[in-house]
Amino acid sequence: MHTPPAPIPVALLGATGSVGQRFVQLLEGHPWFRLTRVAASPRSVGRRYADAVRWTRPEPIPAGIADLVLQPADELGPERLVFSGLDASVAGELESLHAGCGALVVTNARNHRMDAGVPLVVPELNGDQLELLERGRGGIIANPNCSTIGLALALAPLQRAFGVRRVMVTTLQALSGAGLDGLTGQVVEDNLIPLIAGEEAKLESEARKILGVLEGGAVREAALAISATCVRVPISDGHTLSVSVELERPVELAELRASWEGFAVPDDVRALPSAPERPVVLLDEPDAPQPRLHRELGNGMTASIGRVRECPLFDWKFVTLSHNTLRGAAGGALLAGELAVVRGYLPERA
Amino acid sequence: MHTPPAPIPVALLGATGSVGQRFVQLLEGHPWFRLTRVAASPRSVGRRYADAVRWTRPEPIPAGIADLVLQPADELGPERLVFSGLDASVAGELESLHAGCGALVVTNARNHRMDAGVPLVVPELNGDQLELLERGRGGIIANPNCSTIGLALALAPLQRAFGVRRVMVTTLQALSGAGLDGLTGQVVEDNLIPLIAGEEAKLESEARKILGVLEGGAVREAALAISATCVRVPISDGHTLSVSVELERPVELAELRASWEGFAVPDDVRALPSAPERPVVLLDEPDAPQPRLHRELGNGMTASIGRVRECPLFDWKFVTLSHNTLRGAAGGALLAGELAVVRGYLPERA
Amino acid sequence: MHTPPAPIPVALLGATGSVGQRFVQLLEGHPWFRLTRVAASPRSVGRRYADAVRWTRPEPIPAGIADLVLQPADELGPERLVFSGLDASVAGELESLHAGCGALVVTNARNHRMDAGVPLVVPELNGDQLELLERGRGGIIANPNCSTIGLALALAPLQRAFGVRRVMVTTLQALSGAGLDGLTGQVVEDNLIPLIAGEEAKLESEARKILGVLEGGAVREAALAISATCVRVPISDGHTLSVSVELERPVELAELRASWEGFAVPDDVRALPSAPERPVVLLDEPDAPQPRLHRELGNGMTASIGRVRECPLFDWKFVTLSHNTLRGAAGGALLAGELAVVRGYLPERA
Amino acid sequence: MHTPPAPIPVALLGATGSVGQRFVQLLEGHPWFRLTRVAASPRSVGRRYADAVRWTRPEPIPAGIADLVLQPADELGPERLVFSGLDASVAGELESLHAGCGALVVTNARNHRMDAGVPLVVPELNGDQLELLERGRGGIIANPNCSTIGLALALAPLQRAFGVRRVMVTTLQALSGAGLDGLTGQVVEDNLIPLIAGEEAKLESEARKILGVLEGGAVREAALAISATCVRVPISDGHTLSVSVELERPVELAELRASWEGFAVPDDVRALPSAPERPVVLLDEPDAPQPRLHRELGNGMTASIGRVRECPLFDWKFVTLSHNTLRGAAGGALLAGELAVVRGYLPERA
Repeated sequence: MHTPPAPIPVALLGATGSVGQRFVQLLEGHPWFRLTRVAASPRSVGRRYADAVRWTRPEPIPAGIADLVLQPADELGPERLVFSGLDASVAGELESLHAGCGALVVTNARNHRMDAGVPLVVPELNGDQLELLERGRGGIIANPNCSTIGLALALAPLQRAFGVRRVMVTTLQALSGAGLDGLTGQVVEDNLIPLIAGEEAKLESEARKILGVLEGGAVREAALAISATCVRVPISDGHTLSVSVELERPVELAELRASWEGFAVPDDVRALPSAPERPVVLLDEPDAPQPRLHRELGNGMTASIGRVRECPLFDWKFVTLSHNTLRGAAGGALLAGELAVVRGYLPERA
Repeated sequence: MHTPPAPIPVALLGATGSVGQRFVQLLEGHPWFRLTRVAASPRSVGRRYADAVRWTRPEPIPAGIADLVLQPADELGPERLVFSGLDASVAGELESLHAGCGALVVTNARNHRMDAGVPLVVPELNGDQLELLERGRGGIIANPNCSTIGLALALAPLQRAFGVRRVMVTTLQALSGAGLDGLTGQVVEDNLIPLIAGEEAKLESEARKILGVLEGGAVREAALAISATCVRVPISDGHTLSVSVELERPVELAELRASWEGFAVPDDVRALPSAPERPVVLLDEPDAPQPRLHRELGNGMTASIGRVRECPLFDWKFVTLSHNTLRGAAGGALLAGELAVVRGYLPERA
Repeated sequence: MHTPPAPIPVALLGATGSVGQRFVQLLEGHPWFRLTRVAASPRSVGRRYADAVRWTRPEPIPAGIADLVLQPADELGPERLVFSGLDASVAGELESLHAGCGALVVTNARNHRMDAGVPLVVPELNGDQLELLERGRGGIIANPNCSTIGLALALAPLQRAFGVRRVMVTTLQALSGAGLDGLTGQVVEDNLIPLIAGEEAKLESEARKILGVLEGGAVREAALAISATCVRVPISDGHTLSVSVELERPVELAELRASWEGFAVPDDVRALPSAPERPVVLLDEPDAPQPRLHRELGNGMTASIGRVRECPLFDWKFVTLSHNTLRGAAGGALLAGELAVVRGYLPERA
Repeated sequence: MHTPPAPIPVALLGATGSVGQRFVQLLEGHPWFRLTRVAASPRSVGRRYADAVRWTRPEPIPAGIADLVLQPADELGPERLVFSGLDASVAGELESLHAGCGALVVTNARNHRMDAGVPLVVPELNGDQLELLERGRGGIIANPNCSTIGLALALAPLQRAFGVRRVMVTTLQALSGAGLDGLTGQVVEDNLIPLIAGEEAKLESEARKILGVLEGGAVREAALAISATCVRVPISDGHTLSVSVELERPVELAELRASWEGFAVPDDVRALPSAPERPVVLLDEPDAPQPRLHRELGNGMTASIGRVRECPLFDWKFVTLSHNTLRGAAGGALLAGELAVVRGYLPERA
């Protein structure tokens, strides 16, 4: 395992957006990484970060970042590790540009997630997908969709222990997932919006790749079939999923619980700075999990599972919750970046 | 069809509770019924209605009701028609008492819903269940659970046209369903509660009775299997259901839509004072139905359906919404009472 | 009083925005006015209304409006009466254009409110300000700011009866006031925003003009001094104001109440189609007014007042509530337009 | 300064309520105090804490507390320091009982706050009120009302520097202040409640005692006059106050700001384990403070102030925010208990 001897300079694309701000917050005081370059859209380039950003985090802008001058996102810097909170409308090309020039780009955007050569990584589950990259040559590592990560964390232990055949899921997704330019308060007050454009397809496809198997240098997708309905609900943070699963073979409740409670995380992942003690926890209170109570578990990196019971149609039902902007966005990407470093994927300086 | 020649006096049990207040509001100005007797729990007996009630409706207490003195719920009055908004903790015995003495009791409580001799009525769907009663002898008519009614309204056209085999449903239920002593604001603010005690079992059993067939003087339950997850969400009114259905035979989207749009309601039901123009409507906006926008359709008696699309696992998926305290409680019970009158089930005065 | 013999064709500028949609809804079925022309910004011109609008009202788009083709807002039509829901960024010039060409423009925008020749009208309070206009020559009539209208309705009876010297007010304003592009749900969920740009100054200045006196063809502003703090709160509709007033002379509670309860509205105003039975009502429940319970009083045109009590610093304190998009925007403007018609200010057709 | 050499055992009355749970959380891992005794109402006595409590905190019940058996609140234990989260309906007598038997009781209940012999303490402001107690003899220390503490923190620097004559305040108070049996979600959803029973009188009287001066062994209340309106708003935590102040003499903005920024806290208070770095901070963002962003500043012990500007009627206006269950309840009481210890008021063991 490679422990970084000295701070690694990192760049951040899309630094002023909602996800970008979370990256800024999480990188502040990070033991390995030092944010040395922030990039944003042309209209912000050349301005101080503190002047250009519409900061929405409770904590103040970190002192070392406030004075950084925003760079163009299509300009290459010396940093070998680049995090991206870019919007999907521009992320595709810009991330390819950086990766093509030898940087390792860890992105939260959807554009490259299903590319054959791009690992779609939830470190505790499938860090081996990093092998899709060539060591030292840069490339793109994708963080999955925010609601898909929660689903994958809950399903992976079942998939590994019993095999998962079919999954019916309804998501109740928080407002922060809609970004800084999302639904207005007027629209969501005392209301639910039963449509999140494109989200259901992501859940149905990305989960198969995340839970897939690396074979002959490619990911063979898991065979499971998923049907998703995604609803926006008026809460600030935390995506809640109502899930029914059909497994490959009948299992007892005790086995099911044991698969979650005994889920083994590779040692090098467990030791990462952003790794929670446990990626999945079972809650025994009858009315758990609840977003306001449980979204911050494990610093927002732990998915919680509750209401485990038999399903009259499939095998088992449960409710799972995870934090959409921590585990589901910047936190997950940071963890993936840390894993890439310890597994030797950080390119040498040019 | 019997049209009432003169106002029918009605009594109301549980008149001070949340459902009771809705009854009071809806009975005000009713063309057939006149509320002449209000009953409540012992601690309110003898007080003026306006003094005893913690009124939570926007409109003022109807003038004719404010001064009524609350009666004991176990005392029989001259009214032959009795509506009940009693809490389940006391409804069972009290409703049996009134029915046993010859009154026709239309109740919103759960206690007698699954009794063999009790019609579980959604008038547009299954008014024939009234035949479980003996004309003129009184008895109990039950209004189904608030979320089940919405599900039944959406499923009945499919059941009638194609047969329904399996239903997976996640409900997002409004706060008003929790009653005046429900969850505190502190608990639900910025939160979801993924447990509504007993609700999932009701959805799974009541729907089978509602959609059943009357055979030989008894209801043969529909064969469909249901799996439900019920979640309390922070909105004021309106239950939203995410539904996947497996039908008895494959159907095209056009057939599916036609089954809802062409759903035939018996003429005598359509003519009832509380009947909406249509019990079910299809909404074509891609992000409909939404509680704040659509719960009041048809004076809160119309269920709306949207997001109709293929299900990767079952046949079809959709989202349906209905108003839980109008169609799902007092409004539905009132409509059932009206139907009982026109079909001749109102007992003669002793 | 001129009662219109035939439907009056009216045009609507800014027809696709939040206020514009309310105008469309309220004009549907209006006994005097018929919406014959809808205008919007250049990017919508030429499209069907139903295609261009992001409709957010519960009721469907009125059939007669859905197919209207959007016109340029700077193009003059034959309509002599023009309602404007334009955004302040463009309203100033466009409204002057229409008025300059002889139309009577009734606007909800702030631009011309303080102009010397523009009546700032709350019909029940100060319809005489219409005399600032020259009969038959067109001009601009301004509807005051949404929170100011509520304050003016509560203060006018006190001003008339006792004189008002000083007013300290904190407003709790609903999300719908922020418009379709307002604060995102993420920002307002579980939050308050103690800043509404420009709002406090409007409250402090507009109220003086509304409550002013017409002297020598000009409005002499009322002498009262106002200090306002405006806060955005997470509710859908209804602005609530916490008010302390210092009067010109000491009054008893009974006098104070009588001034509100006996407030006289001119007969021709009371008879207008959009006029509520009473512009101001006193509520006696100790915890009234509440937005969800009382904002719809008088079809959203009645301000409610509660919690009337002595102020340890000034004379009296109370809480008042009014509906910001009905009385405070489209409804108020419509009422002003109706008054202009009956008082003979509608220009003759060219 | 007395630094405790060994853990001080403390008892907690009202341990299962909302405030009690906050005490349990804050006492977990406290450097000086060890919770050794939990007491509750008769119906919980004899049960394990974890079994009797309806736990609503995100973090789990501390391991050492879960198994404690609840004691009767009227039974005296060996602990010399007793914290009380009792409800006001029982707090008066029970706290007198413990104090009368020589314990030092630090309470959050309102009952004894205005008693002549009871210090009403905000440690950074008026720790000298502890001198109302006789060292080593026990007694009662009261934590002020949750919204009053925020007001006092904002006013004290002004009072000390310039003198405060009159204060007009409207509070926007969070749901958690209403306790576990507070307003239901149905009542507060999309709503404001402009009444908090008794709250306005507390603000008006308690602030005068907190800001008073100790003279001849008694508190001479500050001369300032306060007028308060209290509104419950639908947010989870954090009380926001809109304040206008009239000072004893005119001051410039710079002086005003300096009085807050330079506010001196006694050294022994600053060194307490629960003391924030600063009790009051000025925020310069134009739309600050906001509850969700700023309530946790200083671990929820710092009041934030923003929107400082001239008042057209008084001298200055501002908005201040503080956390109602941390600074405003258990956190404030804990800080007061710590101060009592270092200033030598902890009674000797019997």
